[in-house]
Amino acid sequence: MDIKESIKMAKLASTDLASSSGEDRNDALRKVANALRSGCDAVFAANKLDVEAARAENLSDSVIKRLKFDEHKLEGVLDGISQLIQLPDPIGKKLLSRELDKDLCLYRLSCPIGVLGVIFEARPDALVQISTLCIKSGNCAVLKGGSETARTNKALFELITGALKESRLPSNCLLQIEERSQVKELLSCSGDIDLIIPRGSNSFVQYIMANTTIPVMGHADGVCHIYVSSHADKQMALDITLDAKTQYTSVCNAVETILIDKKIANDFIPAFYKQMTDAHVTLHGNREFADTLKALCPDSECILMDDSEYHKEYLDYECSVKLVDSLDEAVKHINTFGSHHSDCIITKDNDEAERFMNTVDSANVMYNCSTRFSDGYRYGFGAEVGISTSKLHARGPVGLEGLMTYKYKLYGSGQKVADYVNGTRKFHFKDL
Amino acid sequence: MDIKESIKMAKLASTDLASSSGEDRNDALRKVANALRSGCDAVFAANKLDVEAARAENLSDSVIKRLKFDEHKLEGVLDGISQLIQLPDPIGKKLLSRELDKDLCLYRLSCPIGVLGVIFEARPDALVQISTLCIKSGNCAVLKGGSETARTNKALFELITGALKESRLPSNCLLQIEERSQVKELLSCSGDIDLIIPRGSNSFVQYIMANTTIPVMGHADGVCHIYVSSHADKQMALDITLDAKTQYTSVCNAVETILIDKKIANDFIPAFYKQMTDAHVTLHGNREFADTLKALCPDSECILMDDSEYHKEYLDYECSVKLVDSLDEAVKHINTFGSHHSDCIITKDNDEAERFMNTVDSANVMYNCSTRFSDGYRYGFGAEVGISTSKLHARGPVGLEGLMTYKYKLYGSGQKVADYVNGTRKFHFKDL
Repeated sequence: MDIKESIKMAKLASTDLASSSGEDRNDALRKVANALRSGCDAVFAANKLDVEAARAENLSDSVIKRLKFDEHKLEGVLDGISQLIQLPDPIGKKLLSRELDKDLCLYRLSCPIGVLGVIFEARPDALVQISTLCIKSGNCAVLKGGSETARTNKALFELITGALKESRLPSNCLLQIEERSQVKELLSCSGDIDLIIPRGSNSFVQYIMANTTIPVMGHADGVCHIYVSSHADKQMALDITLDAKTQYTSVCNAVETILIDKKIANDFIPAFYKQMTDAHVTLHGNREFADTLKALCPDSECILMDDSEYHKEYLDYECSVKLVDSLDEAVKHINTFGSHHSDCIITKDNDEAERFMNTVDSANVMYNCSTRFSDGYRYGFGAEVGISTSKLHARGPVGLEGLMTYKYKLYGSGQKVADYVNGTRKFHFKDL
Repeated sequence: MDIKESIKMAKLASTDLASSSGEDRNDALRKVANALRSGCDAVFAANKLDVEAARAENLSDSVIKRLKFDEHKLEGVLDGISQLIQLPDPIGKKLLSRELDKDLCLYRLSCPIGVLGVIFEARPDALVQISTLCIKSGNCAVLKGGSETARTNKALFELITGALKESRLPSNCLLQIEERSQVKELLSCSGDIDLIIPRGSNSFVQYIMANTTIPVMGHADGVCHIYVSSHADKQMALDITLDAKTQYTSVCNAVETILIDKKIANDFIPAFYKQMTDAHVTLHGNREFADTLKALCPDSECILMDDSEYHKEYLDYECSVKLVDSLDEAVKHINTFGSHHSDCIITKDNDEAERFMNTVDSANVMYNCSTRFSDGYRYGFGAEVGISTSKLHARGPVGLEGLMTYKYKLYGSGQKVADYVNGTRKFHFKDL
């Protein structure tokens, strides 16, 4: 069966999965956990081959660390599954209960979205996390993991689907795509796939968004800002900019542009410059910043950039810097050049902070703390499927809740609209 | 200033509107109501010209009824504005409050989506409803109404923006487009417009969806079904199918296909056929239905259709009919040929009804009542901007709530992620 046909079958199975009981889904999760525990040797063996191949291709140590799936990572995903089992059933939550008239009752009930297409980086633990989030939320899914862990993914997926066959859920509710060429087919399955969740590089996500009519949830880039206000605590501003830039540079919530209020430039810039060069961060700035820096620190270096280039995402030990006249200019800059992901103000003035947080049009706005906090785990959401910069549906870190939609159920006893139009009957709208 | 430039300015103004107080927005609504009351003569005069032009073009009476804006419709929209003012402020609702660690607090707060593009049919009252919903919800909007009421729209819009100039809200938060050619420019404003809401014919909405990368909320077609189960109350099934088909044929929640369980065909079809022909409804059916009908009612007429044509939307006194073997076949038919809008089961069996409502993948599922009930007014939502068949963001009838998104605000006191990664500090996640 080709992949499009399989996806069509999964779509049909999705209604059965959506009406499965929470106990059946938890039971399937327990079976998945048991299968992973008892079959882990096959996974470790497959992973060893993936890691050896990655070494042969000279992939960096940090990438290889992510590819690895060992006893420690297994414990992590098993722990995640136990937590998922504890969570209340997300299906069938009553979001609204209203009597419209006698024996005519309206309910808004949470239900799964349907069939998800999730494309994610080479991280075997992500495959388990996403599969189990989908099982808990009652969503079918088509999974495509990074090819560097193809062998590990295959071994994990076999254990998971083997466990599903022993459960009362439709066994074809999870599908795996192994070939990159099949991604194009996946993107063409509008009508059968309800939502695509791509994770990965900016260019990859933009490719996905441009090549499908299926709704896409996620974010392409993370051009995050810190605005150091004239009312900032200097040491706090230094600490937070350093953390946001260097604690982990290759992630979407690392800061890329620092906006410094002109009123504190003379005091702040020399210490800031010293800290950033000590941490091996290269600064980029427009003519105004470069000249100011030169005047304050004659031996300094800064790569000159054009005012139109401030949307750059470095994901590295590099950082754009700009001087601004005011909070309003900072907000305007962020709303124009940013990616609506995570943006921060450092200030001692609460009113100023409130104005910044209300007018910056981003999924996450921070006050006196690092942009690196915008993350499902750090927000206490448990596992996350990604971070959304869209304003529709889920915004910010997306967990279980973002995989749900709702439907209206109207229970009647023979009511016709004609009677309400001609006045024979009247609505009385009473929330239950 | 051309329209793209004006939209860019509205985008910049949207952050001010988003941070305006509920009292300022209610005050603006009061000023709009006063302006409409005191300036109504100009609107009535403009409307008279629109109606005369429509008569000269031989538009139908039902269309002209919709174009008309008189004292009665004015009272209706003024009543709507008073109700909007009474509603609680939708901005800044705390949807989550959580202490992540000491002096590190996370809030999820409702906020406006930003700038909406709303394209709607020739109904002057819709212009007022949409404008005032946008003011209440703090969204900027670009409005394009049907050209048949261009003069009335212009007069209404002048009064509304005149009132906004007297208020504390940005006066350019509402824009109007008068030329159809400008719609194309509107659709190209991704980045400045956050959401397009199109209302109108199937082909019009499909054109919009195919010609923009901006998210679109709404529905193209309404292929609604009623499944008459073998456990249906016969008279109730007759009453509800008649109401759903004929109470108002040109609307999206009118029924287009009746699925009849084979087990009751002999008893149900003759009465159903007589009722529908008495109401001047033409039936369409596949070979199986046509043969069954002929056998039961030798003088009957039915237009033969192919099994692949069951996605037809008539919006008229016409109806597709099909025989099905079971509830499962009915559900599969609806999920395959339907438009995920509003679908109903008639049965006396609660379990069967529950299975139908859980497995039919539609925004609105009904049990023993007319599909015509799926409507913001009848659900008690007050004014609606449309009905969404999307599963993301808002689904079903969309009121004020569907015009909101949320943002995460994180209030810190100098926290860095590095401390939580190296174990110096730990999250304690305490919901406030």
